[in-house]
Amino acid sequence: MDPFADRLANLVRERRSPVLVGLDPRFERLPGELTAAVTSGDAKAQADAYRRFCEGIIDVVASLVAAVKPQLAFFEQLGPAGMDALHATVRYARQRGLLVILDGKRNDIGSTAIGYADAYLGAESAWGGDALTVSPYLGQDSLAPFAEVAVERGAGIFVLVKTSNPGGADFQDLVAGNETLYRHVARHVEELAARSTSASGYGAVGAVVGATYPDQLAELRQLMPHAWLLVPGFGTQGGTAEDVAAAFDADGLGALINASRSIIFAYDRPEYKDRFGADRWQSAVETATREMIGQLGKFASMRDE
Amino acid sequence: MDPFADRLANLVRERRSPVLVGLDPRFERLPGELTAAVTSGDAKAQADAYRRFCEGIIDVVASLVAAVKPQLAFFEQLGPAGMDALHATVRYARQRGLLVILDGKRNDIGSTAIGYADAYLGAESAWGGDALTVSPYLGQDSLAPFAEVAVERGAGIFVLVKTSNPGGADFQDLVAGNETLYRHVARHVEELAARSTSASGYGAVGAVVGATYPDQLAELRQLMPHAWLLVPGFGTQGGTAEDVAAAFDADGLGALINASRSIIFAYDRPEYKDRFGADRWQSAVETATREMIGQLGKFASMRDE
Repeated sequence: MDPFADRLANLVRERRSPVLVGLDPRFERLPGELTAAVTSGDAKAQADAYRRFCEGIIDVVASLVAAVKPQLAFFEQLGPAGMDALHATVRYARQRGLLVILDGKRNDIGSTAIGYADAYLGAESAWGGDALTVSPYLGQDSLAPFAEVAVERGAGIFVLVKTSNPGGADFQDLVAGNETLYRHVARHVEELAARSTSASGYGAVGAVVGATYPDQLAELRQLMPHAWLLVPGFGTQGGTAEDVAAAFDADGLGALINASRSIIFAYDRPEYKDRFGADRWQSAVETATREMIGQLGKFASMRDE
Repeated sequence: MDPFADRLANLVRERRSPVLVGLDPRFERLPGELTAAVTSGDAKAQADAYRRFCEGIIDVVASLVAAVKPQLAFFEQLGPAGMDALHATVRYARQRGLLVILDGKRNDIGSTAIGYADAYLGAESAWGGDALTVSPYLGQDSLAPFAEVAVERGAGIFVLVKTSNPGGADFQDLVAGNETLYRHVARHVEELAARSTSASGYGAVGAVVGATYPDQLAELRQLMPHAWLLVPGFGTQGGTAEDVAAAFDADGLGALINASRSIIFAYDRPEYKDRFGADRWQSAVETATREMIGQLGKFASMRDE
């Protein structure tokens, strides 16, 4: 398996799109055709609706973007049936040629971190992810096993550095030794990334940096030149194309801009509601994805090659 | 449902034991009788061995301790089949009268944190946990939803404050504004705990503080008088009964001391190997649990009431 960073770079270039579509199913927001026959409290039927919803999104975006990002919380919320749906969704996305970044924000002490890394990273792993999001609070010896397994298996990780929520500042912005905590974490991420670079110039270890803090995004792009950035917070959370411009490198590469609700529930957005409605929810997903790719095009220069 | 903190206090008093047994199944360490018929790579059969192993431990410790702590990483490592085994294990432990603390170290931004909280907290939740471990890196607005759901459902959370691994110091010990990061987190945990106290004097929000840093354990007991402490690192990781003495309050309450490998794989410990061997692995679990309760008895004063 080629390194994750290179597979990602190739697909982003090929599809001319830095958009990362988040798969965040929430039962009450699914189109009626998927939920009409589902009894409240029937986790199996709900999970099946999640799977069909995600597969429907994947069918639409498979030719438009490089990767999808299932949010594990929403699958876990349905118990074992939800996990079956997650497993099926990952397989389906890979079959359709998409990379799958599992958003689980996992971590634990070293010997247990190996368990998580083994569970999620690589085509042959139990869940078959291409990459996993990882939380850094437990320190460097908790990140090392993920980095090692990722390199071995041609997979990747994205370490939380500066998150998109308002509370992200509470601890991440504390200043220790003249530097914020998020910069301390970022320096370590860059070390791990630089150590694992491949043809694309990027490493197996990337970083999560929110679109809602544009100044920090620019600062962190500079600080981590070898790290792919996963940038949440675009769309529903308020981040704009201008806000994320600084996430890209000089070639318009190096960043995935994530949108979840604004794409997957696009049929319910005021500007699309009359045009599509719930029946044509997949057309709304396609239009919202293409619109976002268009908005980012002027900043992500591979659109203009 | 009575508040988690009170249910925990009552059971710890009743069983005169602050021991928290970690359920960390690792296939290569299971007793031969559970793995003999399992083909390598058969996740369903492996998961079934995990379930039987955990049930066997629960049968032994149900009358000796207040709670068990399944480590989610090892169940996730087996994919969907592992999650089925986790679900069955939680149900079994609850049926046997144990509290179940799910060690998942989950978190995400607020709206997604609600998903995790809903998934894991409370008897009626998809996984049926009494409590969940939670990571604080994403800030206060990521912890709030867990605290709210926990209070509503008589459940609890344990926030990572000072972890037991050597790398725990990398970021947690950074000093910002004259205080370490872990103290900043601890102050917030204490706020959430104080706001949710019930009859026992403890709140719905507790903290994870490693046994391997005894000075910090004493410091943090002081700083968080309303927080139950979950103390990992005893046994295999090197923490001793003396090291954890400071975790208890004046009544010998307020702390759960976790041991995993040293109890569940006790049959394989040098001092037990000849005495029990793999065939009598459950007797080894019982002996190791009783031995640990005895070691802690002189510090946990409820033993002497």
